Amino acid sequence: MKLTAIKEAAVPIKSDIRNAFIDFSQMTTSVVKIETDVVRAGKKFVGYGFNSNGRYAQRCSLQERFIPRLLAAPPEALLNDEGTNFDPFKAWDTMMKNEKPGGHGERSVAVGAIDMALWDVVAKIAEKPLYQVLAERFNHNQADRDVFVYAAGGYYYPEKDKAALCAEMKTYLDMGYNTVKIKIGGVSLDEDLARIEAVLELLDSNQSLAVDANGRFDLKTAVRYLEALEAYPLFWYEEPCDPLDYLLNAAVSAESRLPIATGENIFSLIDAKNLIRYGGLRPEKDYLQFDPALSYGLVEYIRILEMLNEHGWSWKRCIPHGGHQLTLHIAAGLGLGGNESYPHVFKPFGGFGDKAEIVEGKIKVSDQPGIGFELKSELMECFDQSF
Amino acid sequence: MKLTAIKEAAVPIKSDIRNAFIDFSQMTTSVVKIETDVVRAGKKFVGYGFNSNGRYAQRCSLQERFIPRLLAAPPEALLNDEGTNFDPFKAWDTMMKNEKPGGHGERSVAVGAIDMALWDVVAKIAEKPLYQVLAERFNHNQADRDVFVYAAGGYYYPEKDKAALCAEMKTYLDMGYNTVKIKIGGVSLDEDLARIEAVLELLDSNQSLAVDANGRFDLKTAVRYLEALEAYPLFWYEEPCDPLDYLLNAAVSAESRLPIATGENIFSLIDAKNLIRYGGLRPEKDYLQFDPALSYGLVEYIRILEMLNEHGWSWKRCIPHGGHQLTLHIAAGLGLGGNESYPHVFKPFGGFGDKAEIVEGKIKVSDQPGIGFELKSELMECFDQSF
Repeated sequence: MKLTAIKEAAVPIKSDIRNAFIDFSQMTTSVVKIETDVVRAGKKFVGYGFNSNGRYAQRCSLQERFIPRLLAAPPEALLNDEGTNFDPFKAWDTMMKNEKPGGHGERSVAVGAIDMALWDVVAKIAEKPLYQVLAERFNHNQADRDVFVYAAGGYYYPEKDKAALCAEMKTYLDMGYNTVKIKIGGVSLDEDLARIEAVLELLDSNQSLAVDANGRFDLKTAVRYLEALEAYPLFWYEEPCDPLDYLLNAAVSAESRLPIATGENIFSLIDAKNLIRYGGLRPEKDYLQFDPALSYGLVEYIRILEMLNEHGWSWKRCIPHGGHQLTLHIAAGLGLGGNESYPHVFKPFGGFGDKAEIVEGKIKVSDQPGIGFELKSELMECFDQSF
Repeated sequence: MKLTAIKEAAVPIKSDIRNAFIDFSQMTTSVVKIETDVVRAGKKFVGYGFNSNGRYAQRCSLQERFIPRLLAAPPEALLNDEGTNFDPFKAWDTMMKNEKPGGHGERSVAVGAIDMALWDVVAKIAEKPLYQVLAERFNHNQADRDVFVYAAGGYYYPEKDKAALCAEMKTYLDMGYNTVKIKIGGVSLDEDLARIEAVLELLDSNQSLAVDANGRFDLKTAVRYLEALEAYPLFWYEEPCDPLDYLLNAAVSAESRLPIATGENIFSLIDAKNLIRYGGLRPEKDYLQFDPALSYGLVEYIRILEMLNEHGWSWKRCIPHGGHQLTLHIAAGLGLGGNESYPHVFKPFGGFGDKAEIVEGKIKVSDQPGIGFELKSELMECFDQSF
């Protein structure tokens, strides 16, 4: 049982959208395909992976560091003790050989893309959907297939006025989402408040709105916004300040009547641990958005979840960034609070299977062995064109 | 006045050496050449840069993100207000457009390599050695050309016994270094202590030995080593634990009678600020090794130095990792505590000009306009072959 090939490519996900920090005019993402010699019913098992939006493709480190290490390893170095399946934890150790500590970015994305493909293969070989593999291994076999999802959008587009923003949000609500999220911090505070009020007008009492500043604000701006935002019943106030500025984060959290959400730009166990140690977040109120597809994969994410246990945080506080099927399975199999979704942007990487339906703000994770990419035709088309 | 081309290449610096964390069997580094349309005496000004050892070359992010942004910018976006020279701070803002916060690694190395080449050009156009440019702009025109340097080596080699280690150290002492550094943590504690004692035997009372654990230890091992190391008059105990584990670092520092040195795996202003805020280092005793050629360049390093001021740290506590001429100029022009040097490894990137001499543990920084790479024939040969 061995890996016979690992292929990678870069795919553009550029668009006109911008948030408070960047625009996506040149954005790319990495896609990975793992081929194995495991055959069943005449078919060879393959796995697919990619990284979440926002951090660019990682061709060189994939081609020069991580893929060669996996392919050079003796097969048993990548297998579980019984030799019956691949072991993503052992594969992680192999990939990360000769990598110095610190500096967790970029390579965390490359490793995340490979890790996703590995878990896809592992679950397929086990003939189970990934959520079930995870529930059995890490959650006392408890799983809940119905996962809370919220629709992330509300980016700033050129020429996009409040009417267009509301039309966008309305499509999400019509799809069945009951929580939507928009960007703030990319225009003046008054303009952002007008956008917020326009969207709030659309919502009934079961629906809510979250806002996302993408780490743009200094302390004064973060607090000025906080004072204004607290007038509204918002689901959360996301990344008010630099994601690594734990002191600033703690100051804002200490005074915020709104839940704070952060973590999408935190890419490793030690960075996550520092956020929990120093970031002043409130375990009964705030949300953690670590995204394994940017952060050394599900292997590292499981270590982050164990660390959260040790620090008295419930896994229900986790609602990962990324909007992909990997985190949907993690949410279902490990009892997270939910998952992000991008119904309209970052296609074909955001979103779930073609037939997936949002019912009262929840989606049922697929029962397909693996992660379920085969249920997403645009995504499979992208993979087929890339490799 | 504009940049006409920015070229990059990857150069192998692999060797048999290893430290406690990685081996260098596949190590590479990026080299950069900036060409301009600035002509004087019939010669066009060019600048060279590279990244320090340990973090691999960064071809893709250079080719796809940072170089295109600089070349696409209108020329005035990269010039000082007078239009008389390039402005590395403005160039930095241009390079980092559309880059999300957090995740400071890899790209910090790519930007560092370009930044080095920019400052080389800037100083050449100013017809001054870089240390003088820096002293004038940031240090009230005070400079000290004589810079303390220590010889870093003592890696673990296959088949290398204590005799070979001592022979290596002796060559450094014969060159004029009075402080040498060896690796620890890659063999048993007893074996490391034997290595330390062997080297200490070589030293006279004006000479000293530092040890470097490369972030390998957990708390128990870091403390076990600390207890043993405190018996010796060591110059410092470097990176006892994970460089981002501020809490662990603070625990070890709180009890250490030896100076602690750290920072080579800290790659941004916010990461450095967090180290100062949470890492428990002692401003009158410990050393900071932030390396601009891995950490978004001298532009970011100047921001780090300003942050250190704000936190009551003297710049004399800074002895950067990297062993290159850029940090030699920074040390001379901004009054740092000194600079690392690698007399025998990472050639041709470690070390100084061909004619540079170590006198009583100090080296005189060159007076050549720019950073002075032209004084280092092996390095120029490498650049000429690369581009």
